[in-house]
Amino acid sequence: MKGYLKFRNKIYITETASVAGKMEKEGPLSEYFDISDRSNLFGMKTWEEAESEMQRLAFNTVLGKAKLTPDDVDIAFSGDLMNQCVGGSYSFATQPVNYVGIYGACSTFPLGVALASSFIDGGFAKRAAAVTSSHYCSAERQFRTPLEYGSQRTPTSQWTVTGSGAALLSIEDSSDVYVKDAYLGRITDKGITDANNMGAAMAPAAADTIISYMNASGHKLSEFDGIFTGDLGAEGKSILCDVMRAEGYLLDSRYNDCGCIIYDAKKQDVHSGASGCASSACTFCAYIYKLMKEGKLNNILLIGTGALMSPQFLMQGKSIPAVAHLIHVCTKEAVR
Amino acid sequence: MKGYLKFRNKIYITETASVAGKMEKEGPLSEYFDISDRSNLFGMKTWEEAESEMQRLAFNTVLGKAKLTPDDVDIAFSGDLMNQCVGGSYSFATQPVNYVGIYGACSTFPLGVALASSFIDGGFAKRAAAVTSSHYCSAERQFRTPLEYGSQRTPTSQWTVTGSGAALLSIEDSSDVYVKDAYLGRITDKGITDANNMGAAMAPAAADTIISYMNASGHKLSEFDGIFTGDLGAEGKSILCDVMRAEGYLLDSRYNDCGCIIYDAKKQDVHSGASGCASSACTFCAYIYKLMKEGKLNNILLIGTGALMSPQFLMQGKSIPAVAHLIHVCTKEAVR
Repeated sequence: MKGYLKFRNKIYITETASVAGKMEKEGPLSEYFDISDRSNLFGMKTWEEAESEMQRLAFNTVLGKAKLTPDDVDIAFSGDLMNQCVGGSYSFATQPVNYVGIYGACSTFPLGVALASSFIDGGFAKRAAAVTSSHYCSAERQFRTPLEYGSQRTPTSQWTVTGSGAALLSIEDSSDVYVKDAYLGRITDKGITDANNMGAAMAPAAADTIISYMNASGHKLSEFDGIFTGDLGAEGKSILCDVMRAEGYLLDSRYNDCGCIIYDAKKQDVHSGASGCASSACTFCAYIYKLMKEGKLNNILLIGTGALMSPQFLMQGKSIPAVAHLIHVCTKEAVR
Repeated sequence: MKGYLKFRNKIYITETASVAGKMEKEGPLSEYFDISDRSNLFGMKTWEEAESEMQRLAFNTVLGKAKLTPDDVDIAFSGDLMNQCVGGSYSFATQPVNYVGIYGACSTFPLGVALASSFIDGGFAKRAAAVTSSHYCSAERQFRTPLEYGSQRTPTSQWTVTGSGAALLSIEDSSDVYVKDAYLGRITDKGITDANNMGAAMAPAAADTIISYMNASGHKLSEFDGIFTGDLGAEGKSILCDVMRAEGYLLDSRYNDCGCIIYDAKKQDVHSGASGCASSACTFCAYIYKLMKEGKLNNILLIGTGALMSPQFLMQGKSIPAVAHLIHVCTKEAVR
């Protein structure tokens, strides 16, 4: 039981939508994004407003793709990295949608999908949405230093994805892709204090969640044709593989981290890879979901990874707790 | 449907616990709190650490009162006002409990109880917890100015409650008090920009939630022997009564605001009353729950009210969106 959500119904992912910034549009997933803006401002005056606007764009785009209106959505789960989660709340202040604010740092997207699925499976909603966002510029000035300082970045640092992802879920058989079960993780804290090495803080949480999920569900790693963590980056991905190997699990070539997918590490100067709520949200909503609709992937795990620190607590000398939330997404092909 | 959660089962509130600071301990609810510390530091070095520690104390106290351990809790929902919700995440980093971070500003406690109830009713948890906190000193330096500045407070300003409340919910018939249904609100934004008048920003959200809940559930205001909003304060309470009257609903003496209950307005210098996540959490967990166990109240609504702004968005000239989440709590007496 503890954290494991087994859905009695197939919770279909009706549609997804993604919004991306300039760096993301120049990366390997360029062709998959619905909306992008090379100014990263999306018509707004500040980075923070731009981030909130991306959530509105992603949500309204997913509704448009599904030929629905906000009135058709029973509840929306949204959150982001900005203080007081204002990306979601200011975006949904303009929508007649019942709203649950969630906080899982960069694990927010799978957390939102898991909660939306639980509401649908529990009979509390027919249609629910999960939306999240992150913005490189709002994240840098909030978590590290304003961009104008031109701070040198360390090799283990990651690049916050500018983007937003939205998924619309329904009990109606409206798509081949559905959420089968999910696992909401425990918080782990291994004493990492370097905000430029969040992969190291989050990898143990990812390992704990994957192993706990397999124990709870009875599934085996070998069943999946894709396993994706959210934003461990190259450093955290390597640590996760080591931790899993020490526990007797082999993560082979079917495993990758969204933070290593969304940018081209050789051509784009992102150091250890991508981070941010939008790392898993955009990679799933733009890319993985499309591969699943095309039958190129049929049985995947998406494990959102969140570093739960605040800049203030780091200045007060505290370490970085982390959490990982997992969703298991299938196509009808997977169970034939 | 939209936002309305009708539970098939009675979701019992097994136990509650509350932690309070010096001002709260000196107020009218003094005798009801489980733990208090006149230093407001709870053995920690910073106000932020103290806030997180209060959540740990409240959660462990509610477990102790129910004779349970963290292992007995399937999932915990927690959030607070601090940037990145660190009150909850640092508190639960020390507990082996599966964790969902939520953000509803001062509506967090009823939001957590509603989500915990939905998880139990949906079959995803046997026991779930809802925990939240706020701290006057961490809130002042984050949202307004550091205490050392000695800023003059305006008449409509409210005093953030230093405290934490925790509720433990279960499908087992372990108490006379249970959650019957709930309503998760929409975000409203009436253009209020004064962070010292949050009651005005939140009152319209409370009205929208109460009226929407009655329409969805078929319940009438006259059925309840207590209706409590979270932290509108004297100013917001008066606005809510006006708004409701204009809509044809009379809030009579059975209605009060937790922000007007927890302090003595005549003796304690709190201006418009209490605010903060702990306003509704402490008033419910310490006081209302006890009155219900004693049969002095049998059928109540608790409407958490949250102002969803960030200081940064206010400095950028934006207004304050607000949301209200409602839980309907009964005793067995109520349905006889």
